[in-house]
Amino acid sequence: MAKITLKKIAETLGISVATVSKALKDYDDVSPETKAKVKSLAESLNYKPNFLAQSLRNQESKTIGLIIPEIVHHFFASIIAGVINAAKKKGYLVITLQSGESYDFEKKQIELLLDKNVDGILLSLADNTVDYMHLSNLIESGFPIVLYDKITKSIHCSKVVINDQKAAFNATQYLIDTGCKKIAHVRGPLKPQTTIDRFIGYKNALKENDIEFDTSIVFEAPHLSLEDGQKIAKEIYKNHKDVDAVFAFTDLTATGVMVGLKELNVKIPEEVSIMGFSNWLLTRITSPKLSTVNQPGFKMGKQAFKVLYKEIKDRKAKTKVEFKTVELPTKLVIRDSTR
Amino acid sequence: MAKITLKKIAETLGISVATVSKALKDYDDVSPETKAKVKSLAESLNYKPNFLAQSLRNQESKTIGLIIPEIVHHFFASIIAGVINAAKKKGYLVITLQSGESYDFEKKQIELLLDKNVDGILLSLADNTVDYMHLSNLIESGFPIVLYDKITKSIHCSKVVINDQKAAFNATQYLIDTGCKKIAHVRGPLKPQTTIDRFIGYKNALKENDIEFDTSIVFEAPHLSLEDGQKIAKEIYKNHKDVDAVFAFTDLTATGVMVGLKELNVKIPEEVSIMGFSNWLLTRITSPKLSTVNQPGFKMGKQAFKVLYKEIKDRKAKTKVEFKTVELPTKLVIRDSTR
Repeated sequence: MAKITLKKIAETLGISVATVSKALKDYDDVSPETKAKVKSLAESLNYKPNFLAQSLRNQESKTIGLIIPEIVHHFFASIIAGVINAAKKKGYLVITLQSGESYDFEKKQIELLLDKNVDGILLSLADNTVDYMHLSNLIESGFPIVLYDKITKSIHCSKVVINDQKAAFNATQYLIDTGCKKIAHVRGPLKPQTTIDRFIGYKNALKENDIEFDTSIVFEAPHLSLEDGQKIAKEIYKNHKDVDAVFAFTDLTATGVMVGLKELNVKIPEEVSIMGFSNWLLTRITSPKLSTVNQPGFKMGKQAFKVLYKEIKDRKAKTKVEFKTVELPTKLVIRDSTR
Repeated sequence: MAKITLKKIAETLGISVATVSKALKDYDDVSPETKAKVKSLAESLNYKPNFLAQSLRNQESKTIGLIIPEIVHHFFASIIAGVINAAKKKGYLVITLQSGESYDFEKKQIELLLDKNVDGILLSLADNTVDYMHLSNLIESGFPIVLYDKITKSIHCSKVVINDQKAAFNATQYLIDTGCKKIAHVRGPLKPQTTIDRFIGYKNALKENDIEFDTSIVFEAPHLSLEDGQKIAKEIYKNHKDVDAVFAFTDLTATGVMVGLKELNVKIPEEVSIMGFSNWLLTRITSPKLSTVNQPGFKMGKQAFKVLYKEIKDRKAKTKVEFKTVELPTKLVIRDSTR
């Protein structure tokens, strides 16, 4: 109910839901005129629940929102665990929402969380989010948001990431150092910064080693799935017999390539080395065990909460907030799928 | 802060935190005397925040709590996704907490959730929870709680489960039907009802088929891990050469047994059939692919929310609440690790 009313007020006045929410909470960055308009309209719409909630506002709600693209995914599940673990230590609770890689859900979920009076939001962008107004308005209004993992350079706020370019460079360099000469790359969908950066890291390593870059052996795995990898394996086997290594942007797809090539009796790693990315549990189970890049999900979740917590405290204390980007180290985990 | 005060009031008056919370919210099942005592003490402790929160109480908070033993776990992550999916459809938000199989955390987390005015709680019991007073008091006071997956017969409330006994019976029967004569069982820790029931199902299938039950080939996997399974594989190879099948209570441990036996050059499934339980993603990746029992996590999460939602609505409408146990069907998924 409350949400519908917030929206109604926003639409009636032609302003954003975030501004309405801020106006009702008496934030400094909303003009007195707007505040007056919003409050009078809210009163006439009988918007009582949130006037009460508003009184609670000065006490922190000690709840944060966590928007995650996909819960059933080893890396993101690790992030949830890390956030909840760090939040617990500070007495915070975490409302988790799944955007399912949808921009529309992401927008709605941010509104829902604002309506719940969360003290801040941790967000990994949905793959199809390309318009950032819903976020930049909110950040400009002084609401604490920290982006993690899937970020964009277009938004000015704190971020917690790994250096995907460097990690992918190192993984490719390892393949080159162990004698691979024709290294295929399996990348993810076109938009996310993570998949772009891993692709750039791969390309840079080739360049650094004077290996010609060949677009015909860069494959896209649209669903990040095992099946995507299996299909690509067939394609490599059929049309690119000279490929002697595959660097895939995620473990599940790397495993798909491995399963696919094995079914075609290609010897791993003797004929083709395979390198994944993320270090999921499954990498210890594949046969041969998968070499990969360790992406520290639990640590990223913990760190993201810590950065958000500091921002919440700084804003409360009216200290100047300095946005920062924390880069967590990754490391190569060499197992049996690479030479 | 609020939480500390709730606790202080409870301790001072020698009553439970749940009763304090109910008294402050004017629930019918707390006596007027207790209410008066609680309220006067609360006032003298300057317990303002929740007097305000209390005014919000009659509006539903449209938030529920979800307590999960372990987030980074394919089955439980699927449950979270299912709960969030179903909750979204009804406009509810989900606060997720991880008990880490600890009774103490579980108790504290329920208090935290009550303090947040959640409308209900979904709970899978921690492995070491054996005292249920914290739950039964709450349920008796009319607070909606639904247990899922790891339940106990000692608590009278609604539950969402699979029939672990039947599923384990069917899995064992399949091994017998395909010619296995000496079937080992890997069970989990002693307390959880799920592991007890899977063990009973295994035993019943042996009995039904006149196969002697042999305690020396029932192994315990205390950490539910890959490594537990690998250790048990060595033990089977060393001391139980006649074992021709292993039914493990969870896929990860089954995979550990498979990996361990393969390292000892035992042929799977020609010499030993292996059957897991749960149908994690990893079962499609092991070599050979693991036969298992499909445990519908996503559906269980959805169903658990639906049952909780109905109870919330029924209590609000003062309709009589009938506790029910929903049993979700499982099915055998036969792949390549069984004959």
